[in-house]
Amino acid sequence: MKKYNFSAGPSILPQQTIEETAKAILDFNGSSFSLMEVSHRGKDFQGVMDETVELFKELLEVPAGYSVIFLGGGASLQFCMIPYNLLEKKAAYLNTGTWASKALKEAKLFGEVVEVATSKPANFTYIPKDYVIPTDADYFHVTTNNTIFGTELHKDLDSPVPLVADMSSDIFSRPVNVSKYGLIYGGAQKNLAPAGLTFVIVKDELLGKVTRPIPTMLDYRTHIENGSMFNTPPVVPIYGAMQTLRWLKANGGVPAMYKRNKEKAALLYNEIDRNPVFKGTCAIEDRSLMNVCFVLSSEYEGNEAAFLEFAKSKGLYELKGHRSVGGFRASIYNAMPIEGVQALVDAMKEFEKQIAK
Amino acid sequence: MKKYNFSAGPSILPQQTIEETAKAILDFNGSSFSLMEVSHRGKDFQGVMDETVELFKELLEVPAGYSVIFLGGGASLQFCMIPYNLLEKKAAYLNTGTWASKALKEAKLFGEVVEVATSKPANFTYIPKDYVIPTDADYFHVTTNNTIFGTELHKDLDSPVPLVADMSSDIFSRPVNVSKYGLIYGGAQKNLAPAGLTFVIVKDELLGKVTRPIPTMLDYRTHIENGSMFNTPPVVPIYGAMQTLRWLKANGGVPAMYKRNKEKAALLYNEIDRNPVFKGTCAIEDRSLMNVCFVLSSEYEGNEAAFLEFAKSKGLYELKGHRSVGGFRASIYNAMPIEGVQALVDAMKEFEKQIAK
Repeated sequence: MKKYNFSAGPSILPQQTIEETAKAILDFNGSSFSLMEVSHRGKDFQGVMDETVELFKELLEVPAGYSVIFLGGGASLQFCMIPYNLLEKKAAYLNTGTWASKALKEAKLFGEVVEVATSKPANFTYIPKDYVIPTDADYFHVTTNNTIFGTELHKDLDSPVPLVADMSSDIFSRPVNVSKYGLIYGGAQKNLAPAGLTFVIVKDELLGKVTRPIPTMLDYRTHIENGSMFNTPPVVPIYGAMQTLRWLKANGGVPAMYKRNKEKAALLYNEIDRNPVFKGTCAIEDRSLMNVCFVLSSEYEGNEAAFLEFAKSKGLYELKGHRSVGGFRASIYNAMPIEGVQALVDAMKEFEKQIAK
Repeated sequence: MKKYNFSAGPSILPQQTIEETAKAILDFNGSSFSLMEVSHRGKDFQGVMDETVELFKELLEVPAGYSVIFLGGGASLQFCMIPYNLLEKKAAYLNTGTWASKALKEAKLFGEVVEVATSKPANFTYIPKDYVIPTDADYFHVTTNNTIFGTELHKDLDSPVPLVADMSSDIFSRPVNVSKYGLIYGGAQKNLAPAGLTFVIVKDELLGKVTRPIPTMLDYRTHIENGSMFNTPPVVPIYGAMQTLRWLKANGGVPAMYKRNKEKAALLYNEIDRNPVFKGTCAIEDRSLMNVCFVLSSEYEGNEAAFLEFAKSKGLYELKGHRSVGGFRASIYNAMPIEGVQALVDAMKEFEKQIAK
C-alpha cells in the first residue's frame, strides 16, 4: 500500500530530492566524500549554491534589483531581522494567524506597530479585507498562507508602502509578482527543502536606511555581499533545495504547480462540502490551496480519533489538525500527487458509509 | 587507494554518521517516510532530540544547572546573541584569531568591550598568557581553538567572571570542566554534525539579568523553555549529531578521543619538526590538536602547489592552508583515523626525498 504524508511541515518532498540527497550524503559529485564533510568554499559546493540561487530566481521570476539569500535560524528569526533592517519609525501588520501574531510581537521591540486588522476574534477563520494601510509606515507585513488555520491570500496585494510577506508555506505553489513586494521570506521546510534553511528575497534599495546599528549576522547586506556564504551555510538543506527546484523546473515550473495545486485543492474541498460527515473551517474565498482544514460535522463529533485511525489504515498519515483548530488538516504541498488527495477523498467517502446516520 | 579529507570544516565525520544519516533520509525509523519530511513534533523525532541532548550532556559531563540547546544560524550568530543576553555594561575578550576578532566586534554594539590581550601583531601565532581580566566585566570570552591559525588553549582557564568559550573546532576533542564556564558554544560542523547546527551550553543562573529587551529568537531562555523546539529545528544536522555522539560513546567517549588526538597530533608535529622541508607556524606550547598548520621551510618555498598535488596523488585532500597563514593545514578532528595522519607523514617523508637538497 502506498503511504501518503500530509504533515504540515517538515513535510512531503519530491522523491528526487530525497533520493539525490541521500546519494550525495554517501558520495558527493563522485568525490567519494560525503556532502556533509566537504568544504562549503570548494568549487563543487559553490556550484550547488550558485545553481540554487539561479533556479530560485528563474522559477519565481525574481526581477532585477532583488537579491535572493539563504540563511539559518528559521522564519522565526526573520520576525526580528525584518524590523531590525527596515523599521525606522512605524510598521503595519495584518494579523491572520499564529505566525502573523508572532511576527507582529517582535516588531514592537523596534518601533511603533499598527495592527491594521485581525481575524483573531473569529479564530482566524478568514482574512480581513477592509483595512487601511498607513502611508507613513516603513512597511506592511502579511502572512500569505496561514499553515495552522488553512487560509491563504490568493493575490498579490496593492500596498502604498513596501509589502513584506511570510511565504513559508506557499512559496512556489502559485505565481507571485515579486515586483509588488519589498521582501519575501520563509522557512524552506514545506515546498522546498529539509528544515534548517530560510530564504529571503529582498529589494536591494530598501536596505541601509535605518539608523540603528545592526549586528553583522542580522544585517541582510552581510549575506547579500557574501553570496549567503558569510559563514558556513546549511549545506544539506541547500542541496535539497537545489534538487527540489530542479524537479520543479522539469515538471513545468510554478504555473504547472499552480494548476495542479488548484485541482488537488478543488478535489478535496468539493468532498468536504459534499460529505455530510465533514465540514470546512474557513471562509470559502480564503481557503488555502496548501493546508486544508476540516472538522467533523457537529452530529459526528467525537469520531475524530476513529477517522484518523481509519485514514492510517488506508496509508494516510499526519492528518490531525493543529490544536488551535482541532479536527483534521491535510497539507497538500507541491510534492503531494493528486493520487494522494484522491486516496484521502476515497477514505472520506468510505468513512461516511461506515458511520453516516 | 583510501582517500582522507583534511578539510577544516565542514569536515570529516564518522562513517557511521554518514551512512546512518543517508539511510534515515531514505527511510526514517522504518516509517517509509524520509527524515527530511517528518514532523519535528512527532514522537520519533522527539526521541532523536532527547537522545542527542542526553548524550551531549553525558559525554561532556555537563553538570546540573546548565542547559544544552541546539540552534540554527551558526556560531557567528552567537557573536551577537552572547552580548544580547549577557552584556549589561562591560565584557572582556581575548583576541586570538579571526573568529575571536569577529566575536569582539559584535559585542561592541552592546556595551564596553575590553580586549585583554591580542596576538594579532604576531599574526596570531600564539595565545597570550599575561593579561588581567577586569573583575567588573559581565563575562570573559575566549576562542579555545583557532581553526585558521592552528593554536589552542590546552586548559580550562580560571576567570573571576563568567567564562564564555567558542569551542566550534575542539568540542568533544578533549575533556572540559564545564563547571568552569558560564557558556560554551560552537558550530557543529567540525566534530559533531553537518553544517547548519549550533550548540550552546549555558549556566541557567546567568540568564535574565540584562535590562535590554531581547528578541524572542535571540533569547536563550526561549530555546531552553522549549527544548530547542520553539521553531522547527535543523532536523538532519541534529540526527547527524546523534549518530556522532553514539559513535563517540561506543569508542570510549571524550577521554579516548583525547588520547587518540594527542597521538595523532604528536605524530604529525614530530614529522614537521624533524623534516627539513617543513616547519610549523605556531608557538609550540600553543599548537592545536585539531588544526595542524605548517609551511615549507624558507629554502623550499615555491613548492607549495607541488606538495599539494603530490599529497592528492596519495589520496590526501584539502591540505591547503588558509590564506591568512599560507602553506598547509591538516585538520585532524576526532573522525580522522591515525592511518590518515600516518599517510600524510609518509607523504611528507617521500616529498622530502624527492626535493631535499
